[in-house]
Amino acid sequence: MRYYQYLQNGTKHVGVEDDAGQVTDLTALNSQIGSTLDLFKAASITGSDIDSVARGILAANKGAATTSAAELLDGAKPGCHWVTLLPPVDAPEVWAFGVTYMDSMRERQAESGSPDVYAKVYDADRPESFFKATLDRLQSPFDDVGIRADSGWDVPEPELAFVTYGGKIVGYTCGNDMSSRTIEGENPLYLPQAKVYDKSASLGPALVSKESIGDAQKLSVTLTIDRDGKEAFRGEANTADMKRDCEYLVGWLTRHNSIPDGTSVMTGTGTIPPPEFTLQAGDVVNITIDKIGTLTNTVVVV
Amino acid sequence: MRYYQYLQNGTKHVGVEDDAGQVTDLTALNSQIGSTLDLFKAASITGSDIDSVARGILAANKGAATTSAAELLDGAKPGCHWVTLLPPVDAPEVWAFGVTYMDSMRERQAESGSPDVYAKVYDADRPESFFKATLDRLQSPFDDVGIRADSGWDVPEPELAFVTYGGKIVGYTCGNDMSSRTIEGENPLYLPQAKVYDKSASLGPALVSKESIGDAQKLSVTLTIDRDGKEAFRGEANTADMKRDCEYLVGWLTRHNSIPDGTSVMTGTGTIPPPEFTLQAGDVVNITIDKIGTLTNTVVVV
Amino acid sequence: MRYYQYLQNGTKHVGVEDDAGQVTDLTALNSQIGSTLDLFKAASITGSDIDSVARGILAANKGAATTSAAELLDGAKPGCHWVTLLPPVDAPEVWAFGVTYMDSMRERQAESGSPDVYAKVYDADRPESFFKATLDRLQSPFDDVGIRADSGWDVPEPELAFVTYGGKIVGYTCGNDMSSRTIEGENPLYLPQAKVYDKSASLGPALVSKESIGDAQKLSVTLTIDRDGKEAFRGEANTADMKRDCEYLVGWLTRHNSIPDGTSVMTGTGTIPPPEFTLQAGDVVNITIDKIGTLTNTVVVV
Amino acid sequence: MRYYQYLQNGTKHVGVEDDAGQVTDLTALNSQIGSTLDLFKAASITGSDIDSVARGILAANKGAATTSAAELLDGAKPGCHWVTLLPPVDAPEVWAFGVTYMDSMRERQAESGSPDVYAKVYDADRPESFFKATLDRLQSPFDDVGIRADSGWDVPEPELAFVTYGGKIVGYTCGNDMSSRTIEGENPLYLPQAKVYDKSASLGPALVSKESIGDAQKLSVTLTIDRDGKEAFRGEANTADMKRDCEYLVGWLTRHNSIPDGTSVMTGTGTIPPPEFTLQAGDVVNITIDKIGTLTNTVVVV
Repeated sequence: MRYYQYLQNGTKHVGVEDDAGQVTDLTALNSQIGSTLDLFKAASITGSDIDSVARGILAANKGAATTSAAELLDGAKPGCHWVTLLPPVDAPEVWAFGVTYMDSMRERQAESGSPDVYAKVYDADRPESFFKATLDRLQSPFDDVGIRADSGWDVPEPELAFVTYGGKIVGYTCGNDMSSRTIEGENPLYLPQAKVYDKSASLGPALVSKESIGDAQKLSVTLTIDRDGKEAFRGEANTADMKRDCEYLVGWLTRHNSIPDGTSVMTGTGTIPPPEFTLQAGDVVNITIDKIGTLTNTVVVV
Repeated sequence: MRYYQYLQNGTKHVGVEDDAGQVTDLTALNSQIGSTLDLFKAASITGSDIDSVARGILAANKGAATTSAAELLDGAKPGCHWVTLLPPVDAPEVWAFGVTYMDSMRERQAESGSPDVYAKVYDADRPESFFKATLDRLQSPFDDVGIRADSGWDVPEPELAFVTYGGKIVGYTCGNDMSSRTIEGENPLYLPQAKVYDKSASLGPALVSKESIGDAQKLSVTLTIDRDGKEAFRGEANTADMKRDCEYLVGWLTRHNSIPDGTSVMTGTGTIPPPEFTLQAGDVVNITIDKIGTLTNTVVVV
Repeated sequence: MRYYQYLQNGTKHVGVEDDAGQVTDLTALNSQIGSTLDLFKAASITGSDIDSVARGILAANKGAATTSAAELLDGAKPGCHWVTLLPPVDAPEVWAFGVTYMDSMRERQAESGSPDVYAKVYDADRPESFFKATLDRLQSPFDDVGIRADSGWDVPEPELAFVTYGGKIVGYTCGNDMSSRTIEGENPLYLPQAKVYDKSASLGPALVSKESIGDAQKLSVTLTIDRDGKEAFRGEANTADMKRDCEYLVGWLTRHNSIPDGTSVMTGTGTIPPPEFTLQAGDVVNITIDKIGTLTNTVVVV
Repeated sequence: MRYYQYLQNGTKHVGVEDDAGQVTDLTALNSQIGSTLDLFKAASITGSDIDSVARGILAANKGAATTSAAELLDGAKPGCHWVTLLPPVDAPEVWAFGVTYMDSMRERQAESGSPDVYAKVYDADRPESFFKATLDRLQSPFDDVGIRADSGWDVPEPELAFVTYGGKIVGYTCGNDMSSRTIEGENPLYLPQAKVYDKSASLGPALVSKESIGDAQKLSVTLTIDRDGKEAFRGEANTADMKRDCEYLVGWLTRHNSIPDGTSVMTGTGTIPPPEFTLQAGDVVNITIDKIGTLTNTVVVV
């Protein structure tokens, strides 16, 4: 099942989407449910999973009002705005992995003055992980994402993101890992500055539970960038091409490193715009992943 | 089942006592369980009850370490103190009812310059409820309870207390409703000053779930007051003698009055020391209720 | 100076009104100022008062944008709503005093089956205080206030309210102490049910500092009730007629009773509509106090 | 002046040390002061600095009880423990800079398979910054610090740390930036894994205000490592040898990157044990910086 978090009349709600594409407001049915973390916590305490918990609530509330997911997402678009979508999980930390796809390795080499380090990490057992964002730095679906004013070459990185609870993967969403190629290219030691800055990350629109995603390593990931109403770039990848799968990555992330519940993790990009492309203010970035949906953000200079 | 909250090494724990009197530390088994309200919330979201939730956790953790309840309570006694007991629920509000037993009515009349109001309320449909404490004012088991320096006639009132969640009764504990008879006796309008003051309320030691209490209207309530190591007063009542039962009381409390989850409610006293008795600093008050245990507090002047 | 709290674009702001009636957004000047309690805390730590703190900020930010207070209050009216006014202090508890005016004493006697208790309390040293509301129960200016569905005779009580910090009076605002005369009249022991229920209290629109109020015991208090667009009742009182002044009341309230910072206290009513008057849904209640402003609420049945 | 945070009887206190080395408990004088961030906030709102705020409190409380700083620090040592020292600021984020000293650059080159990147960053305008810790990951003075079980070559890095508020430097403390040379040496892209892991950072024991530190770029920094009761390593550096000063570093950190109040920043190491040295469990690390004091931690394997 798919889970959404959104503001309506100043209050945060959790909605769950069933197989028919209808969203039920769980917060309206039980005011105890104020966030998807509440569902994960209840599932953890009762030894269950959030789909079972959600199904139990729906079964006990047959005939509850629903909205179609399409309507909810439309209502959250800028200009409409009867709801405000939020990241589907209140991730206290967002981490990311790099160089998990061959394409990413090649692009990193192309931009870098130190190309060897990328080849080495691609082939090594130990993957490259880095701290990407705190909850405060996380942008909501349809919110702005930023490019640094001191960077001239900038791209979104469309990535499958997994959500953890108790150090285990419990769900998936779309991640936008905004990156400055100028800064990372200058020196691998500048990675944090290329990756962590105002409005540099976004997650959403939905969280799909681990129970509902099927095979997380067979999802197509599509990136489109619209400029002046026209598609300026389209690229595609598939999580089947990840060199290391999500379970492998979370194992490394939590090695000697405790992460708080809800920590979400971007898993690397398999498609990057070509060298001659750089983002501009006003560009609209759409990241679509099978079974999850489309995460849309508009670019601003920060 | 019985539930305890206690501090150990600076951290709050929730323990559950099984039928054999053995306490399992639920927080140690699942760090998500930081309070009994976490159990009630998980039960509410999953449409279950806390005993079922606790049994599920115990079943999934067979062989987990236990302590006997007797040992836990001994360890919490002043002087020993390897644990510090807390009220068994983080009650954001404590309310109380008055004149729910014939004896209480008579005592109120005896002390009062306006005796009629007590007879009237005893016979009326609408019971007498009042605000008793906030969480900050609530004393833990084995903590001090207070008598006001501006009062000369003071008593503990031993009362069955019920715990609410979603406006419904979900559990029971012992309540000590410390009261100034001087001040209440002077004028019924002084009730809040006779009832709400520093250290005027205590709850504990255990919370017994609604599922485990059996018939809450057939519980003996015993009050003993020890002075200088000797029993200075002993009185007994039984919740069977309540004129109005707990379900009736909660119905009136929540009539046009929303109460937050965890709100706990003292249900009135059926035994009060005789007119010539008043509490002194150093007195030890023990309130024992069937199936719950003994709530012990020491009197100080506030 | 006058202080306001309001929501704008989902964020809480503190505004200060100078002698010329211009409001400066303090939160915009220093994001540390998220509430009036932040100002009181800074004043407490630095041994200052909030007017001095506010003047310091204004002096350091000459030329900062301002709005007229009239515009701000207009913008908060239902239907307009570019801002949402909040109670001017995040009062964790609201207490109230009764029978502090001769008129109130007479009205209480008129409605009561136990008239003596009101005469006695009016003449006694010890005043009548009671718990009125928690922060969650407090209604904002222009919000609804409630009358209980199980009551047939209901009135607003317009009262000067003082705000405390560290147990001392630090400011003043208007209070609406909604009351069921039916229920209180039936038995003085029902006072909590006549006084504490959903939407039974409101504070605002501004907080005037103790330093700016001048003589708090010389303020006219005007109550008007509009029904169907016409004035249905008008009454006036003056805090000069309070039998006990605010300093006297706070001294009694804090006697052996610690109150949290921000606790606000309604000081009793000097004007009550006549016996034949009762509130109806849709009535608009306006409480105007010298130097503070007008607190407006609309009546609903709860 | 120097500021400490410590737990005493389960409550957090802020102490300030005067020029005579006497510590006054500010929390005991004003319960509003629960953390050093409270002092910074009050100073920010009143346009003052924390030394002025503290002096005001001390002047208003002449004759308040004091403890010598030596006694406080002794009392916090393992085994004694009448107080528990905490990091002197509740830093929501800890960042760090690398390669800010010539020595650090050389050591990085010596360990690395990609030595060029360190020479380049040492000479570039843009410094190397990285995310080091969240508040939950921060160890207190006298607490353990960790070495990763999957690393064989580990060192503490003794560093001057600055504390920010509103994006500006407001104070200084000692920082221990525990690092895995094995992991960082393998690939510069592994920096986050070499730097961010359980118990990898510590700050303390005191915070010295910007107003009291004098010239922050003329402080000697001494590292000693004791093993089996004997000094196993001693090294010294001076912040005068930093290639980039603290103001320069904070300017880069906050470029397009908003940091929360209290964020603390380690400024790089000027002394590192020789290649043949690696930490072992049980080693005691002491970092002493002029005017601040000594931060002591014991090494454990995590």
